[in-house]
Amino acid sequence: MNIDLIEAAAKRLSGHARRTPLLSSPFLDEIAGRPVFVKPECLQHTGSFKFRGAWSAISAMDPDIRARGIIAYSSGNHAQGIALAATRHGAPSVIIMPADAPKLKIDNTRALGAEIVLYDRASDDRDAIGDRLAKTRSLTLVKPFDNEFVIAGQGTTGLEIAEQDKSQGIENARVLVPCGGGGLTSGIALALENHAPDMVVHPCEPQGFDDVARSLVSGKIQRNKSTSGSICDAIITPQPGNLTFPIMSRLCGAGFVVTETQCLQAMKHAFLHLKIVIEPGGGCCPRRGPVSLQ
Amino acid sequence: MNIDLIEAAAKRLSGHARRTPLLSSPFLDEIAGRPVFVKPECLQHTGSFKFRGAWSAISAMDPDIRARGIIAYSSGNHAQGIALAATRHGAPSVIIMPADAPKLKIDNTRALGAEIVLYDRASDDRDAIGDRLAKTRSLTLVKPFDNEFVIAGQGTTGLEIAEQDKSQGIENARVLVPCGGGGLTSGIALALENHAPDMVVHPCEPQGFDDVARSLVSGKIQRNKSTSGSICDAIITPQPGNLTFPIMSRLCGAGFVVTETQCLQAMKHAFLHLKIVIEPGGGCCPRRGPVSLQ
Repeated sequence: MNIDLIEAAAKRLSGHARRTPLLSSPFLDEIAGRPVFVKPECLQHTGSFKFRGAWSAISAMDPDIRARGIIAYSSGNHAQGIALAATRHGAPSVIIMPADAPKLKIDNTRALGAEIVLYDRASDDRDAIGDRLAKTRSLTLVKPFDNEFVIAGQGTTGLEIAEQDKSQGIENARVLVPCGGGGLTSGIALALENHAPDMVVHPCEPQGFDDVARSLVSGKIQRNKSTSGSICDAIITPQPGNLTFPIMSRLCGAGFVVTETQCLQAMKHAFLHLKIVIEPGGGCCPRRGPVSLQ
Repeated sequence: MNIDLIEAAAKRLSGHARRTPLLSSPFLDEIAGRPVFVKPECLQHTGSFKFRGAWSAISAMDPDIRARGIIAYSSGNHAQGIALAATRHGAPSVIIMPADAPKLKIDNTRALGAEIVLYDRASDDRDAIGDRLAKTRSLTLVKPFDNEFVIAGQGTTGLEIAEQDKSQGIENARVLVPCGGGGLTSGIALALENHAPDMVVHPCEPQGFDDVARSLVSGKIQRNKSTSGSICDAIITPQPGNLTFPIMSRLCGAGFVVTETQCLQAMKHAFLHLKIVIEPGGGCCPRRGPVSLQ
């Protein structure tokens, strides 16, 4: 995994993924006590950065293999990113979703062109269902974060941050990234290592689901006790990825742990001052960084 | 008023106004029955396109005159655009606002650096207050739409639409513009006349406040009966401007009249499918264009 993969992904994404702007507001600066810039990936196709990774992985496939179809597990944003990216490549996609996923997300994913296979979280073996389907129909699995092409796609966000900051004369910043499995965080960290080396990436996680923060402290992959029970459903993952963790460990600053109240406040401020609609996981960002780190 | 003024404004705005993206969603396309692209000027500095016109006018002033200060009348978006643009030029600004304007808008305008002078809509003469202040303190008045530099600034939105559409292979489209006094509508129409001549601009107004639509039909400036009583407060003006109307008359297609329910539906769809927060006036756009015009 290296910067060349990210730059190659940027070429494949050009004209297909959206280049999101860098937003700011004097009112946010006042609240935070420092200049704040927001990269609103909620404005990306399908409403999240996941479209970048999905497009990156699907566009890099051998056309014959791609034409047989893609398979993915997801109850949310990765599902929609894969569905749209596959459809736009003329490839079928199958998404394995839990039967209790929100009806709207299931409907949206289907409307974007995917075939949905529902499973029962309590009684079915999701991986067995996926393996059988993948083998029977020669589908290719695209994992949500532990995949080099996916990380490279998410990393294009970092290339844009570096460029957009540079054009505003900003070279030094803390880059706070809401973090689940670490695909976006590690991709951005790699991009900035090469294009804005004075910036430090801090993974941000909801209280009680701070596997990445703890893993960074201990130097080894740590698991969360629970995989549900947070409003930040988009970034609740059991543990950092085998590909993403070494990158985060090498490049990231300390992880920040964020309360649900802070996530909700971030949603409110984003709505009021930036005119964007973010989900709780997208607002997973401390109101102020720890004073000792300033 | 011509395209050269718009292109000169674009140079002055570069690096200061935000280049907003062009958004779309397969779900919006399905609702509208055709491809739809949205230029989200709610993401502009201060939350509306008004910042473009304000920056254009203030940046074009003689520095000595500008340093004495700017004066404007507005209860909303123009106020905030002028306040921020003046502050960033190091110039004082005075905004004459009605005492019953929303407290949040008054507070925001003040926080952006403006001095606020409140007047009573019923008993005070707003123009007399403004004239006296302008003379006593040598302030320069920037009107909200009937000003060539303001129209030129709003027209930079049209330059971006032409460029962004071209990069997606779109040359032919109806361009629906929520319309008050016509600054944005006439600026976009002029920009597209030169850079995307197959596009047709249609001003869109709330039901009961269709002065522009009626003026376009009769060929003469028509007034609204009322200047209040709509949820679309941002685009309720008594009549089209003396500078904007001839441009709209020469270049625009028929005006569209939009119900309040349609504005509210547009807000909902923008929230759900584009993740942006728009005000009712910004959603003033018919769900489907008249079939006979397709």
